[in-house]
Amino acid sequence: MNMNPFEKGCAWIEGEYVPIAEARIPILDTGFLRSDVTYDVAAVWKGRFFRLEDHLDRFEASWRRLRMQPSLSREEMRAILFGCVARSGLKDAFVEMILSRGVDRHGVRDPRRFENCFYAYAIPYVWIVKPEEQQLGTHLIIARDTIRTPPQSVDPTVKNFQWGDLIRGQFEAYDQGGHTAVLADADGNLTDGPGFNLFACHDGTLLTPSHGVLQGITRRTVLDLAEEKGIATSVTMFNAQVLRAASEIFLTSTAGGVMPVTTLDGRQVGEGKPGRVTLLLRRRYWEAHEEDGWTTSVEYPSHA
Amino acid sequence: MNMNPFEKGCAWIEGEYVPIAEARIPILDTGFLRSDVTYDVAAVWKGRFFRLEDHLDRFEASWRRLRMQPSLSREEMRAILFGCVARSGLKDAFVEMILSRGVDRHGVRDPRRFENCFYAYAIPYVWIVKPEEQQLGTHLIIARDTIRTPPQSVDPTVKNFQWGDLIRGQFEAYDQGGHTAVLADADGNLTDGPGFNLFACHDGTLLTPSHGVLQGITRRTVLDLAEEKGIATSVTMFNAQVLRAASEIFLTSTAGGVMPVTTLDGRQVGEGKPGRVTLLLRRRYWEAHEEDGWTTSVEYPSHA
Repeated sequence: MNMNPFEKGCAWIEGEYVPIAEARIPILDTGFLRSDVTYDVAAVWKGRFFRLEDHLDRFEASWRRLRMQPSLSREEMRAILFGCVARSGLKDAFVEMILSRGVDRHGVRDPRRFENCFYAYAIPYVWIVKPEEQQLGTHLIIARDTIRTPPQSVDPTVKNFQWGDLIRGQFEAYDQGGHTAVLADADGNLTDGPGFNLFACHDGTLLTPSHGVLQGITRRTVLDLAEEKGIATSVTMFNAQVLRAASEIFLTSTAGGVMPVTTLDGRQVGEGKPGRVTLLLRRRYWEAHEEDGWTTSVEYPSHA
Repeated sequence: MNMNPFEKGCAWIEGEYVPIAEARIPILDTGFLRSDVTYDVAAVWKGRFFRLEDHLDRFEASWRRLRMQPSLSREEMRAILFGCVARSGLKDAFVEMILSRGVDRHGVRDPRRFENCFYAYAIPYVWIVKPEEQQLGTHLIIARDTIRTPPQSVDPTVKNFQWGDLIRGQFEAYDQGGHTAVLADADGNLTDGPGFNLFACHDGTLLTPSHGVLQGITRRTVLDLAEEKGIATSVTMFNAQVLRAASEIFLTSTAGGVMPVTTLDGRQVGEGKPGRVTLLLRRRYWEAHEEDGWTTSVEYPSHA
């Protein structure tokens, strides 16, 4: 009998660890009311954080770009992430860190004067495409009625919750019988989709969009692993026509890893099953989650 | 001695009225984690809601566009808004209604299957430009490094919390010694700013941008009152050059009404004080807040 109150997840809110179902933030937090907030997500797999320092680096770059300043040090924030995972007992976890602009406690409406607020939580590992669906490959569409918010409006390299364009794309996918959508920019260059980066194998080279996209850690890992395997890569802008001619397509995310795509706009991609390069990189991606160089062990309490 | 626990504001969260300082939402609500949410704000002035049905109409149009469905009827939501104001005892209040996509309770990552969640709160009336600053007029800049998120990405007529572009603009304003900023679109046409619509008097006509902007209720009220006063209006796109040539500039919002602008990019607008048309419309705007045709009385409990 498991009596751990954190078994479904553990959050850290204003100095206390709380069960995820009880974790709440002030309704007046401008992280909610203005989406004035940044975040990052790291995975724990088989009891080990994957590339945690890279996630902490990106998180810091994000909050610095937004001119925020946490009241906690990096070491304190890192310890809280470990604390959430350890209390939950979860061996495979989705671990989110959030820095919000905070509450306008003095009615000044001046975000420079708010006390920024750190939140964190660990919940069971999240899959954008579930493992059983990854066997067959997922169904991608290219959004037609929605373009990606341009970097001149909202900087996609600052990881953010402003998913209005991505959610519109997701509804377009549902309407067309797809699972998810990739968005193009105003010039027709493909960017990314709800929570993932895009990869395509084209003429023997692995392509991924260069601009207007999140600088994904999984994306970077896949580029690293492709180099290790001698696969040519190109970080470049490309359009729908190039994607339609791809022999393989996959999506990357901390929430699901390397996810094969087997239909694009309802048409078969390559041979209609997860491709050779995709499967090779997916295997290496999960192997890396057990290798010392990429990972940091979580110490769980003995009762967990 | 006032012992009312709601005197600083009253929220309605999941079926209960709570003091605003205790009002919290689940951290896992996708209204926060994805900014998948819409809202509206109505003002109460001298104990009367202003154009409440118009706010409820716009709110409904917004949630329908996002394919949400509240579990409460319009009548129930309206009663909750009155309930928040009545309990707070506030005669001048800022009353916000929110419909969020809600929590992914079953780990399906499919927003069509989440139970949408209504929240509401009343707090003391909010001023984007405080009354004493309105006497002198505020300081506006035109953002140079940030463009307004285009409607093809996020529809601005669906009132939303995705303020990343607007907050960037606000920081640009601070950096240049201004109070707030108006953003242009990719073609250089002016749109709106953080929480307000833009108006300019130019060659005897009152201009306000037509596209890529929130369909503000205060904006509409000002257009109605201008018509009443025989002032020519034009809802049209115009650029920075036109704005620089304006004899008067003002901003409109439920949070502050008709707010005169007396410097643009550090240069004096018109005679450097709130203009004749601006002051006329501001006076009529506040008079309308006490007129039966525009307003609905709140019934306060006798102890409030």
